[in-house]
Amino acid sequence: MDPQPEATGQPLSSDEIGLIHAWWRAANYLSVGQIYLLDNPLLREPLKMDHVKPRLLGHWGTTPGLNFLYVHLNRVIKARGLNALFIAGPGHGAPGVVANTWLEGTYSEVYPAIGPDEDGLRQLFRQFSFPGGIPSHASPDTPGSIHEGGELGYSLLHAFGAAFDNPDLIVACVVGDGEAETGPLATSWHSNKFLNPATDGAVLPILHLNGYKIASPTVLARISHTELDALFRGYGYLPIFVDGEEPDAMHRAIAAALDDAVDRIHAIQKAARDGGVTTRPLWPMIVLRSLKGWTGPKIVDGQKSEGFWRAHQVPFTMDKPEHLGLLEEWMRSYHPEELFDDGGRLRPEIAALAPRGDRRMSANPHANGGALMRPLRLPDFASYAVPVVHPGESDGEATQVMGTFLRDVVRENAQARNFRVFGPDETASNRLQTIFEATDRSWDAETIADDVHLDPSGRVMEVLSEHCCQGWLEGYLLTGRHGLFSLL
Amino acid sequence: MDPQPEATGQPLSSDEIGLIHAWWRAANYLSVGQIYLLDNPLLREPLKMDHVKPRLLGHWGTTPGLNFLYVHLNRVIKARGLNALFIAGPGHGAPGVVANTWLEGTYSEVYPAIGPDEDGLRQLFRQFSFPGGIPSHASPDTPGSIHEGGELGYSLLHAFGAAFDNPDLIVACVVGDGEAETGPLATSWHSNKFLNPATDGAVLPILHLNGYKIASPTVLARISHTELDALFRGYGYLPIFVDGEEPDAMHRAIAAALDDAVDRIHAIQKAARDGGVTTRPLWPMIVLRSLKGWTGPKIVDGQKSEGFWRAHQVPFTMDKPEHLGLLEEWMRSYHPEELFDDGGRLRPEIAALAPRGDRRMSANPHANGGALMRPLRLPDFASYAVPVVHPGESDGEATQVMGTFLRDVVRENAQARNFRVFGPDETASNRLQTIFEATDRSWDAETIADDVHLDPSGRVMEVLSEHCCQGWLEGYLLTGRHGLFSLL
Repeated sequence: MDPQPEATGQPLSSDEIGLIHAWWRAANYLSVGQIYLLDNPLLREPLKMDHVKPRLLGHWGTTPGLNFLYVHLNRVIKARGLNALFIAGPGHGAPGVVANTWLEGTYSEVYPAIGPDEDGLRQLFRQFSFPGGIPSHASPDTPGSIHEGGELGYSLLHAFGAAFDNPDLIVACVVGDGEAETGPLATSWHSNKFLNPATDGAVLPILHLNGYKIASPTVLARISHTELDALFRGYGYLPIFVDGEEPDAMHRAIAAALDDAVDRIHAIQKAARDGGVTTRPLWPMIVLRSLKGWTGPKIVDGQKSEGFWRAHQVPFTMDKPEHLGLLEEWMRSYHPEELFDDGGRLRPEIAALAPRGDRRMSANPHANGGALMRPLRLPDFASYAVPVVHPGESDGEATQVMGTFLRDVVRENAQARNFRVFGPDETASNRLQTIFEATDRSWDAETIADDVHLDPSGRVMEVLSEHCCQGWLEGYLLTGRHGLFSLL
Repeated sequence: MDPQPEATGQPLSSDEIGLIHAWWRAANYLSVGQIYLLDNPLLREPLKMDHVKPRLLGHWGTTPGLNFLYVHLNRVIKARGLNALFIAGPGHGAPGVVANTWLEGTYSEVYPAIGPDEDGLRQLFRQFSFPGGIPSHASPDTPGSIHEGGELGYSLLHAFGAAFDNPDLIVACVVGDGEAETGPLATSWHSNKFLNPATDGAVLPILHLNGYKIASPTVLARISHTELDALFRGYGYLPIFVDGEEPDAMHRAIAAALDDAVDRIHAIQKAARDGGVTTRPLWPMIVLRSLKGWTGPKIVDGQKSEGFWRAHQVPFTMDKPEHLGLLEEWMRSYHPEELFDDGGRLRPEIAALAPRGDRRMSANPHANGGALMRPLRLPDFASYAVPVVHPGESDGEATQVMGTFLRDVVRENAQARNFRVFGPDETASNRLQTIFEATDRSWDAETIADDVHLDPSGRVMEVLSEHCCQGWLEGYLLTGRHGLFSLL
């Protein structure tokens, strides 16, 4: 068994940490602002009830963790020139995702009415979970998002779907520990048995263990470290643990963990692509154990909030006058005056942390399938017609004819590698088996001599989970490719 | 970490093995008969095509493993006076389940037209997957079955649902390795965090790793032993491995494994019930790695069948005349003349292996909820009405009123322990929180000082998997209790 990696490297200077921390504060500030504020976005005047939304919606709890990961992914993207996507699995994570896309400038590029300035901030805050605005999930209008997360359970499947046949792509997928309790998510860890390190990209799962769901602990946060480590090794990953609450130490730890993970991903890919290694690799993953609602109010109305389930949604409502001071104190704790200039623009030294152009996760063209999609080459379906010379005299099987058509679709698009067929182990029993004249089943687990039609590069994805089939296909389609879900 | 148990004990004499092996042969014979035969059930005359069903349906692959486990569970039930249920997770496992219920005599008691004799056997064979007969899943008419298995993924959830509040019950749950790929099954292993060893019964999961689905390998059969062991330890179980194909050695190994597992279950229960141990125990489970279609034809038409996916459904069709001989040779390999007397009755020394009366898993009253159900005590719902003196002047919240009603239902049935509320972490956010005045959330994982309303005996079952909520509730209801699935 591979020794336990320790994420204790020191790759960051204090200056770098300071800038990263500033971005994180800015993203957290913007997240709180979206949840609470209608106006006075930079707190230029003392906060008044008039500045606060009449009805508060949104989920603070998961957001600081998402923001923390986003800025650190940006660091490693820039440092290594990565081509990366971000998938936010936790439900209602939009305040964080949207905040980062605004900080990267993409949001204003896509939606010019929401500019990179104070007025833009006002609009950004107002529109969140507001009539005529945007939802609290990372909805399809969120730049860089292919995963809304409304129905929990599909984040990792979407990540793998995006990574298939995109050999240069790294999909960083934050899995919430609530979402991790769902069935689709629990089985989707096994997607690593269907990924070819030579021709597919990589998925970097990041389990965000912040400990709580709406009103109770999560299962994975309340098992022993030994069990948690065993579980992910059993799923076939090398878990890298990052655990703590002190920001400085945590910045260093997550940076080291990401460097370690990316090193391992690159080594795996090199071994498969140059060295011809064909055994399934031990892919890295990260387990981030951090406080729910990290940096939020520690105590609200005498009860524990930060690091507890009470921070899951809106940590406090605004029906008590004293909460106005609590909100202002909380928002000012991020020191917006250090983060934004007089016009409300992100200060340039912080903005410079973002990758350039389409290396920004919010602008990665893979997250906008339409920008990359090439049409599927389809043979003329009429040429597959079963000849009927006299009524009632011809024999034919509809799905077998379809299988022949699919075989030819696979052949005509073999070079493009942009077509896959998904299904729960029924391709042959549903009589589509002629497709196996052109390709095999995707399989990167162990094989024996008697096996037939198993290949890490196979175009047919079969697993006895329709959730996996559906989720993989969605991720594959949303990144601009083509596929079929065969289920009879 | 607990040392790896080795299932190498020698609890069985050669005579016992001989009788157990005879029962297994009889069950396998009856299973093949159900799939293939219309007539000539005891092969009193040479097999002819007229004796064979015109259309073959059924699944042989999983059946010998189910039969093997059934007879060995009977041994341990008799030896220790256990109160046990059998849940057959693998799809289409009815030939095996029905065969054993007939061998136990229950089938003929419930359906007198299908007697415990040659004519009964003929009817038993004919009715299987036949117009007017029974389906190929363990459908609700199967004595002792609460789990049809038509939609794969719920076997373990049904098992836990049955075990809740049945402290003397052991639910043996065979999980197919195909089913194990589904999302609901993958997350349902975590049900052990919601089971109270003091007041609930036990579930003994038996992962039947026969290696194949319809036409390809299963994921769990093609990962390393190290990963498989880690996965189940990560899920919080102590896996006991039984692996092989030579019947004599396998009879000894599974018997030792079952003795070991039952010893551990009893020790866990004793520690919780007498010793007051409150930490979550390390429940045993069994991993049975055996051949798909074990004891079936090794080669069919020159291709590997036993131990391969080709044995999954019907190992061969009857469209070739030479298959008639193959079928007869296969069925005669079980030596039916040694198993049944001249009247077609199971020989008494073999029949004596079955437990008596309602200790037979096919006759266990827990599998027939109606036989045990006590009415739920319900307060008069009218007394919870929100008073409306003048139209439009009263305030009330429907679900909060419902929560008060549920609180009182919990109180009035506290002694009976036959009511639970299931839901995905929304009991409080759906405003049913008054129920927590009477009970807590069921929770047997770790706790911290800040936690509220968590208790191993809680009546509220919350997990962020609606599959779990649904499956647990089904198992609870089908064993004669009451529950509510709250989902808004």
